[in-house]
Amino acid sequence: MVIDVKDLYEKVNELMGKDIILQGWIRNHRKQKEFGFIDFSDGTCFQHVQIVYDEKLNNFSDIQKIHVGSAIEVVGTVVESPKEGQAFEIQAKEVTLLGECPEDYPIQPKRHTREFLREVAYLRPRTNLFQAVFRVRSVAAYAIHKYFQDRGYIYFHAPLITASDCEGAGEMFHVTCMDLDNIPKKDGSVDYSKDMFMKPTSLTVSGQLEAETFALAYKKTYTFGPTFRAERSNTKVHANEFWMIEPEIAFCDLNQNMEIMEEMLKYVVSYVLEHCKDEMHFFDQFVEKGLLEKLTKLVNSKFTRVTHKEVIEILQKADVKWEFEPKQGEDIAKEHEKYITEYFDGPVFITDWPKDIKAFYMKQNPDGATVAAVDLEVPGAGEIMGGSQREEDYQKLVSRMDELDMDQSELDWYINLRKFGGCVHSGFGMGFERLLIYLTGVENIRDVIPYPRTPGNCDF
Amino acid sequence: MVIDVKDLYEKVNELMGKDIILQGWIRNHRKQKEFGFIDFSDGTCFQHVQIVYDEKLNNFSDIQKIHVGSAIEVVGTVVESPKEGQAFEIQAKEVTLLGECPEDYPIQPKRHTREFLREVAYLRPRTNLFQAVFRVRSVAAYAIHKYFQDRGYIYFHAPLITASDCEGAGEMFHVTCMDLDNIPKKDGSVDYSKDMFMKPTSLTVSGQLEAETFALAYKKTYTFGPTFRAERSNTKVHANEFWMIEPEIAFCDLNQNMEIMEEMLKYVVSYVLEHCKDEMHFFDQFVEKGLLEKLTKLVNSKFTRVTHKEVIEILQKADVKWEFEPKQGEDIAKEHEKYITEYFDGPVFITDWPKDIKAFYMKQNPDGATVAAVDLEVPGAGEIMGGSQREEDYQKLVSRMDELDMDQSELDWYINLRKFGGCVHSGFGMGFERLLIYLTGVENIRDVIPYPRTPGNCDF
Repeated sequence: MVIDVKDLYEKVNELMGKDIILQGWIRNHRKQKEFGFIDFSDGTCFQHVQIVYDEKLNNFSDIQKIHVGSAIEVVGTVVESPKEGQAFEIQAKEVTLLGECPEDYPIQPKRHTREFLREVAYLRPRTNLFQAVFRVRSVAAYAIHKYFQDRGYIYFHAPLITASDCEGAGEMFHVTCMDLDNIPKKDGSVDYSKDMFMKPTSLTVSGQLEAETFALAYKKTYTFGPTFRAERSNTKVHANEFWMIEPEIAFCDLNQNMEIMEEMLKYVVSYVLEHCKDEMHFFDQFVEKGLLEKLTKLVNSKFTRVTHKEVIEILQKADVKWEFEPKQGEDIAKEHEKYITEYFDGPVFITDWPKDIKAFYMKQNPDGATVAAVDLEVPGAGEIMGGSQREEDYQKLVSRMDELDMDQSELDWYINLRKFGGCVHSGFGMGFERLLIYLTGVENIRDVIPYPRTPGNCDF
Repeated sequence: MVIDVKDLYEKVNELMGKDIILQGWIRNHRKQKEFGFIDFSDGTCFQHVQIVYDEKLNNFSDIQKIHVGSAIEVVGTVVESPKEGQAFEIQAKEVTLLGECPEDYPIQPKRHTREFLREVAYLRPRTNLFQAVFRVRSVAAYAIHKYFQDRGYIYFHAPLITASDCEGAGEMFHVTCMDLDNIPKKDGSVDYSKDMFMKPTSLTVSGQLEAETFALAYKKTYTFGPTFRAERSNTKVHANEFWMIEPEIAFCDLNQNMEIMEEMLKYVVSYVLEHCKDEMHFFDQFVEKGLLEKLTKLVNSKFTRVTHKEVIEILQKADVKWEFEPKQGEDIAKEHEKYITEYFDGPVFITDWPKDIKAFYMKQNPDGATVAAVDLEVPGAGEIMGGSQREEDYQKLVSRMDELDMDQSELDWYINLRKFGGCVHSGFGMGFERLLIYLTGVENIRDVIPYPRTPGNCDF
């Protein structure tokens, strides 16, 4: 019976002295004259297993020729290890080669640069770093689902192909079936009647507006799906394709929204700390010193709430030479985010933003100048989530769209939500990769997405 | 303290005689001279709550004017209901209008056709049918995650934008940033160097090939994400955008693959039966008579395994006048699928398909004519999943690609998986909406996707 390494670690006491079968890959192979050590992994957990074999095996010399990266099957006995800090090892009775690997295999047991590993992205999950990153990605994704499902939220699959640039959140990718070499035209411009949907379509930048329709039917809903930005930003934190989580909650104001943001973030961080102990220790040791302390502190802190106006006042009073001068009514810069989280020594909700720098759907405050928006700033990462109470007043929403010269016919369904049993409701968005960067300490978005899409890069 | 209707049903015994606050929507409103009945839902569960109010309330006449669809807040006492089959009702102390709804609101408490409801898709989750459908969608999605996560699978986010038509599974949508009105050209053809990724890109039809790279690093992985087909098929079961689940497992042959397919399907069906009792009873009663019996039978059955060759023999011996004559070496039709599941009186795995009608990556059997592929046919729905052992032999894979005249440079990474520690591995794919059609009895794919994309339709 083949056993997963994960289960082996969990049941090692009862398996001690017993024979087991393992199937997996050689991560390192140290050969000596009369015996050899195989550093073995089957990918089911972060930890490897040491396989010891000796010359009593009749294929001893063949085993010694097996290269790093090869797939093998091992029949062996679980025995106590003489090596300190290692609970057990496997004394091999049989080692069988299942799939060989050439000597020039790119993933050797040595340090590779992350840039090099991006070029062989299809092999990088076989390294410790990426093995850990993508397991944390998987576990964090599950934690998010679990948080919302346990609380009765409906998982909503927002459409990816869309006919409207709803949020105006950025440049969009066009989606078409037409032959690009020979675009059908009519009266000099593109004849969209020939395209699949008979109108121009793009890839969505947000599922929020559609999610609101579900909030007003189910009270609590969330999206978790891919979104796209056709921006030519070559930074560490921008990708053209990334995953977003966008909860929407009816009968929920900005304060209740912040409660949920805080509770959810703490839940997901705690879940990952508990379920990815080895991976998180690895990041703490080799990627970002102090990571565990940072995350544990977050989980145990009470998030501060402060208005944008107060933030600007604090920044203006600060004895700091700013690159960008903080000004009332304007956005804040990275340096300001950093200062504010240090000033409050923890996560900070900044609320009530100037309406002109925020989206049309945010609830207008009575002051006429700000909206009931919130950004969550966390130490070491800056903004990690953003949300708002949504404008529930039909007339105010329409007026704001008029001011911004937005086409209302395209969004009539969205506006109608305010007419057909509308209510106070709120929501927020979290970029999944931003969260992963924060959780792992891996700072480049290209290293937390299995196959990242960035300007000029669409491999695999 | 506001309580969700879901929690109210769960805690009704301890709440009996106590005051509560509810926030939600009026689904129906029956008015009599001295009192009124509000059929109330907050979307947190399928069940509604009856609110009773009488003329003692000082805004009695205002309450009577509130239309169906409006959002209200109710303060009231949980009391035993005189109505048979109804455990409790709420005797209102206060009813407050939160968001009104006009009299011409499209969703009235009467039967609407599904065609009409597609036109107001943003409101249809407020009807019983769609409230049930999209909750089952959410719960089934979670059941799938839970099944795989509990068993140590890594959730893999396959890239959506891709530069290769890997599977050849169908027509693809182009993705571009270029101005369609003015496509940049060079030497007469499209100048892709001007596009975001500097080459032609499309929306993926499958994440399988990329998922295999994760199977060979983590042993067990699964995708659950959107996929796209640019087909102009106007059928009940085709959409241009839909969600797929694609597990891939290393050290797993076709037989083990079938074990997993069977176990997973039974798990998800059982989970939904257990967690969506009211919804499933509704479908059984109003959408597909016998649905619960069909699903319960599936969960308790042992799936039959039979080869494609045997299936053709059975079909040829059958005393049936076929529309399509069954032939060795050829695909089977809907009528054949139906006959076979009836013949075996349950779900049937059909294995070892003619290689010419299956994909290039499937493992070639020693007979030279068939591949280690499997389709799962279930009574009442036909094919619900398909999978295969993947060709692990480098040379055989390359030869097959040569035969099919496939460009290997584009898939060098995929082919290399067979060179760098390759092993027996298998996987399968399940269309999420196919599963939902099977689970709910709702037969049109447009009615199990919140905002479906089909030829000519890209609304909301």
